[in-house]
Amino acid sequence: MPAAPEALPTHVQVTEVGPRDGLQNEPGLLPTSDKAGLVRALVAAGVRRFELTSFVSPRAVPALADAAELVSAVRGIPDVHLSALVPNLRGAERALEAGVDSVVLFVSASATHNAKNVNCRIEDSLAAFAQVARRLEGSGIEIRGAIATAFGCPFEGEVDVRAVGRIARHFADLGATRLSLGDTTGMATPPLVTDRVRHLREVVPSLSPTLHFHNTRGIGLANVMQGLWLGVDRYESSIGGLGGCPFAPGASGNIASEDLVYLLDEMGIETGIDLESLIEAGRLATRLMGRPLPAQVSRAGPRLALGDCSAVPTARG
Amino acid sequence: MPAAPEALPTHVQVTEVGPRDGLQNEPGLLPTSDKAGLVRALVAAGVRRFELTSFVSPRAVPALADAAELVSAVRGIPDVHLSALVPNLRGAERALEAGVDSVVLFVSASATHNAKNVNCRIEDSLAAFAQVARRLEGSGIEIRGAIATAFGCPFEGEVDVRAVGRIARHFADLGATRLSLGDTTGMATPPLVTDRVRHLREVVPSLSPTLHFHNTRGIGLANVMQGLWLGVDRYESSIGGLGGCPFAPGASGNIASEDLVYLLDEMGIETGIDLESLIEAGRLATRLMGRPLPAQVSRAGPRLALGDCSAVPTARG
Repeated sequence: MPAAPEALPTHVQVTEVGPRDGLQNEPGLLPTSDKAGLVRALVAAGVRRFELTSFVSPRAVPALADAAELVSAVRGIPDVHLSALVPNLRGAERALEAGVDSVVLFVSASATHNAKNVNCRIEDSLAAFAQVARRLEGSGIEIRGAIATAFGCPFEGEVDVRAVGRIARHFADLGATRLSLGDTTGMATPPLVTDRVRHLREVVPSLSPTLHFHNTRGIGLANVMQGLWLGVDRYESSIGGLGGCPFAPGASGNIASEDLVYLLDEMGIETGIDLESLIEAGRLATRLMGRPLPAQVSRAGPRLALGDCSAVPTARG
Repeated sequence: MPAAPEALPTHVQVTEVGPRDGLQNEPGLLPTSDKAGLVRALVAAGVRRFELTSFVSPRAVPALADAAELVSAVRGIPDVHLSALVPNLRGAERALEAGVDSVVLFVSASATHNAKNVNCRIEDSLAAFAQVARRLEGSGIEIRGAIATAFGCPFEGEVDVRAVGRIARHFADLGATRLSLGDTTGMATPPLVTDRVRHLREVVPSLSPTLHFHNTRGIGLANVMQGLWLGVDRYESSIGGLGGCPFAPGASGNIASEDLVYLLDEMGIETGIDLESLIEAGRLATRLMGRPLPAQVSRAGPRLALGDCSAVPTARG
């Protein structure tokens, strides 16, 4: 643990990953018009950055089979940045054609997870990324990097921070403009956040990290606190806390955008997002999914939402 | 917000409040033998401090109607400290007779909440506490103070930190050995934690605060992070996250003991509690309640619990 934190940011960029990470494990496809409606509700709340979908095999991820249609449905919204995940050149071609603003190249820091996730070695993923970078040269489409299992692997256990650093270096050399550290199965902890952030600042000082936490073990926002103390000013979250890990039934997925923005608001850190409208978007997400979602602040309301307390019981401490 | 945090503690005392705060809103009475079994499971995990019950009107809080029987059932367990809440002299007499180690005198920092909770003015509560203190003199029973709505009131909104400080001063003058700040309806935020802790250190330097957070709005452990950075080394939590606010349906109650201990373990802060055994106690709590409880780490398991990942899907970022 650090002896003392560095500095809290005054502004934080929140990227909404609900349409991608939040939905990707759903067994079926939510209608594209419903997804687009959710994106519009989020834009109305002030959200400007979306990780919208993935250009992967529709057979592997049926929930994102409408990737091109969804980009098409929302790309006319002004002042919005649309990203999509792509694992290889083929995905990048599809993303380019669909009209995204940026592609997110993703690879796992752990070999076993990468093999199970995209069926190839880490080196093969990195080689494919070089092809993508060449293909996108001059296209105006930004390249971003995402490192899955950056805080631990469900198969291998601990992940060496140097493995994360080597991939980050590769992304920087490719000209990536952003780097996201994915807490794929909720294994991040405050000391690991410090360790990763400090190491990356040493080895890729040009590429300040974005933190992407899952609340699988309940400490997602504690990890955000650690990131904030380290001065990290970019986080990814999912509306309603949509998402979750199919091999940990009942476990939460991404940290909930509402709870993140509530925390940042209360800490006096600006996001440009209106919490009440974001809670409305979360209610829409709940209706679309037809089940309660993990976000907490949506249930209780913001802290000064008074007047619904007539049933307060007596003689409690 | 503080410009820089003070110092992380190396040890933290966790007080288990599940049998009291976790159960008090239940409509019925869990059998005393089940409560005692849960306490024994917690003791087996290394928990040593319990806020076990409240000596209040059994009509007002039927779930704690067995206060004396429960104390009697568990007070033979060695090396365990048993506290009980008492609102007034009558409650203190019952607690004394039952054989607790300490009584927790509780009052709200907000007048409206105190009136609704214990049907009297704050001054009346404080006057009653003076009677209790006189009655317990020489009994060997420790007096502790608890301030409800210390971070905000569901009726009045913001609570002036000086109101918290005045009550804290009163408790110190009575000879209280502990002071707990209750986040009754989950209104605490990191800046308010800093504000309360710093003010109390000024006005009652002899009485270092215990923090009691609810996860109603999802930021319970973010508040713990803030407390840790301020050097606060005493927290109250509830096994499974048992509890909750009857006027915010679906909202979580206390922070879950499992998630708290997981966070502290991962930060290298000692508690004397074994996480795996605590998760077992949480499973017992779930069985006794007959419903899923909010604790997260119990569902996913500790972070290096590998090998249950055969169903990991492919092509996810």
